[in-house]
Amino acid sequence: MELLKERILHDGVIKDDDILKVDSFLNHQMDIALLNEIGQEFRTRFADVPVNKILTIEASGIGIAAIAAQYFDNAPVVFAKKTQSRNLDGALYTAPVHSFTKGVTYNVQVSQKFLGPDDTVLIIDDFLARGQALIGLIDIVQQSGASLAGCGIVIEKMYQGGGTLLRSRGVRIESLARIASLEHGTVTFL
Amino acid sequence: MELLKERILHDGVIKDDDILKVDSFLNHQMDIALLNEIGQEFRTRFADVPVNKILTIEASGIGIAAIAAQYFDNAPVVFAKKTQSRNLDGALYTAPVHSFTKGVTYNVQVSQKFLGPDDTVLIIDDFLARGQALIGLIDIVQQSGASLAGCGIVIEKMYQGGGTLLRSRGVRIESLARIASLEHGTVTFL
Repeated sequence: MELLKERILHDGVIKDDDILKVDSFLNHQMDIALLNEIGQEFRTRFADVPVNKILTIEASGIGIAAIAAQYFDNAPVVFAKKTQSRNLDGALYTAPVHSFTKGVTYNVQVSQKFLGPDDTVLIIDDFLARGQALIGLIDIVQQSGASLAGCGIVIEKMYQGGGTLLRSRGVRIESLARIASLEHGTVTFL
Repeated sequence: MELLKERILHDGVIKDDDILKVDSFLNHQMDIALLNEIGQEFRTRFADVPVNKILTIEASGIGIAAIAAQYFDNAPVVFAKKTQSRNLDGALYTAPVHSFTKGVTYNVQVSQKFLGPDDTVLIIDDFLARGQALIGLIDIVQQSGASLAGCGIVIEKMYQGGGTLLRSRGVRIESLARIASLEHGTVTFL
């Protein structure tokens, strides 16, 4: 997606040859017009699948998924929660997810009320790096008996291997910007 | 907002005469068509203010704010973060917020890059109860030198006093559903 790549080149900031900060338009401040373009692109790429539910994970995936859902006939968006809450009770699907960014492992949770065998689920998230969050979300989709349409990712850091691992397992992944390297302070797309 | 009140009566679940669970359409699974109606209603209520930025807090506010922003000329949405992250660096505005729901106090953080004296900010959140989150977000707006247009809240639990406190301080609050009581397992609107 050229518009996205241009934005990454223009406004992304590389830290430590490893971290790409896109907090000015994607995951702290959100550019809503760009999110609409992203949502339309996900729709184009998954036009062949009857998606009726979108699954994401708090917090950065939520805005992207909510805007994208408008291009999937307003499919309901479920966001997995990372922490216990008095508001989350009843039967839950859970899966452990390790965050290398935050250095913690948490149990991702989704109420069993909102995913089931009748659902065809598109997973949406901002980043795919080592794939930990996606592995947890896919685990939850499988527990629910729903069909997995695939994963729509805004930015994939190819060199961290999560996408390779998941594709080798047969998971369909559509990444809108695929980054081969951040070395020497330069974004190199695939 | 009648559509919202009907939805609360139909799908809301009361727990312990105190908690209103709206996880089937607002803060775990999100009804995107309803969020669009909510966004339009916020626009109508704040039509007199030149809002150019929307501030919310992770996680439940993000989807609501992202959809609403489309009715404010795609104003950028900034979401305050509750946890440290390698992705959040540089100068930050911070404010302590106590969550009675989760039983913890955390430091809410917003990068100073994304709020400043040129901004007219609308704060959006899903719930207003004791007002702790709003007090923290308003503190951050004041630190930044931005103008506060007001606060757009989906559901206000009037009996928990946060709205009364904030209105007494001159904060403009527009709540789309105002709940006087959840006693005896019944939602009573104001």
